[in-house]
Amino acid sequence: MKFLNILTLSLSVLVTTNLYAQEKAPAAPNGIELPKGYQNWRVISSSHRTDHHSLRVILGNDIAIKAAREEKTNPWPEGAILAKMVWKEGELESWNNAIVPEDFVHAEFMIKDSKKYNKTGGWGFARWVGLNQKPFGDDENFVQGCFGCHTPVKNNDWVYTIPSKFPKTR
Amino acid sequence: MKFLNILTLSLSVLVTTNLYAQEKAPAAPNGIELPKGYQNWRVISSSHRTDHHSLRVILGNDIAIKAAREEKTNPWPEGAILAKMVWKEGELESWNNAIVPEDFVHAEFMIKDSKKYNKTGGWGFARWVGLNQKPFGDDENFVQGCFGCHTPVKNNDWVYTIPSKFPKTR
Repeated sequence: MKFLNILTLSLSVLVTTNLYAQEKAPAAPNGIELPKGYQNWRVISSSHRTDHHSLRVILGNDIAIKAAREEKTNPWPEGAILAKMVWKEGELESWNNAIVPEDFVHAEFMIKDSKKYNKTGGWGFARWVGLNQKPFGDDENFVQGCFGCHTPVKNNDWVYTIPSKFPKTR
Repeated sequence: MKFLNILTLSLSVLVTTNLYAQEKAPAAPNGIELPKGYQNWRVISSSHRTDHHSLRVILGNDIAIKAAREEKTNPWPEGAILAKMVWKEGELESWNNAIVPEDFVHAEFMIKDSKKYNKTGGWGFARWVGLNQKPFGDDENFVQGCFGCHTPVKNNDWVYTIPSKFPKTR
């Protein structure tokens, strides 16, 4: 019986591994690795960029989620990682007034490490494009584009996202 | 040292419990209990209802997430729970063309149990309103409203949401 339990557990691990962690994506040009398993992180917020015609969900690692739920995000704590997942906007066929995600565009990340990334506001930036997660940028200078675009929100610790309010009841 | 470790662990558990599971919400008029910890579930999709002026994130329990990622959602498997979290739409001050969540409206649920809920397409419906999670509906007949509104998507197992595509790379 104990053997069967261990066998079942091993099989579950194998199945989960196959489903959620296939090929490893190459690192970004600045050396940042794609955060493992970010697709399973919890929600910080969402948005609809009407100028970019895309829908976004902003996820966070455990450190970021704790900070978001406690409303302690200016500054965000060391080790926080924000993941913005972006899809092109589409119209839901069964409800025309619902704008919904269609093709996956990219996943982009901000990694808080004040010492390591002190030249870019204490944040490491990286982006992987498409469902096959191709690293964005020809060389490490791509981060100047990210950093420049985030300068207007310098006073919000360089972050555009405002965490959504979540009910605390269980 | 061991005592200190145990003390630290106990304190962490206490803090986590306080943060994420405060008061228990009352059951819905049809007896359905608010699924515990749904705020920490993973993402299935998101949407922007331009007619209802609200942004939505659709979360799922483990059974629902597995089905969504494997694209096996017509029908959804027994035990799947879908949680739709709804916020009023607002404009991001720092980026005017970004529509973002403002006040929390409600969390609504579909619970798949073909036997228990055979009168409503195999789904149990329930909704809790506001950050204090007040159960929606005067009596159990409120589900007729939910079920009626979902009738146009009968052929999609009564579900409007189409799971978003997620990269499989790690």
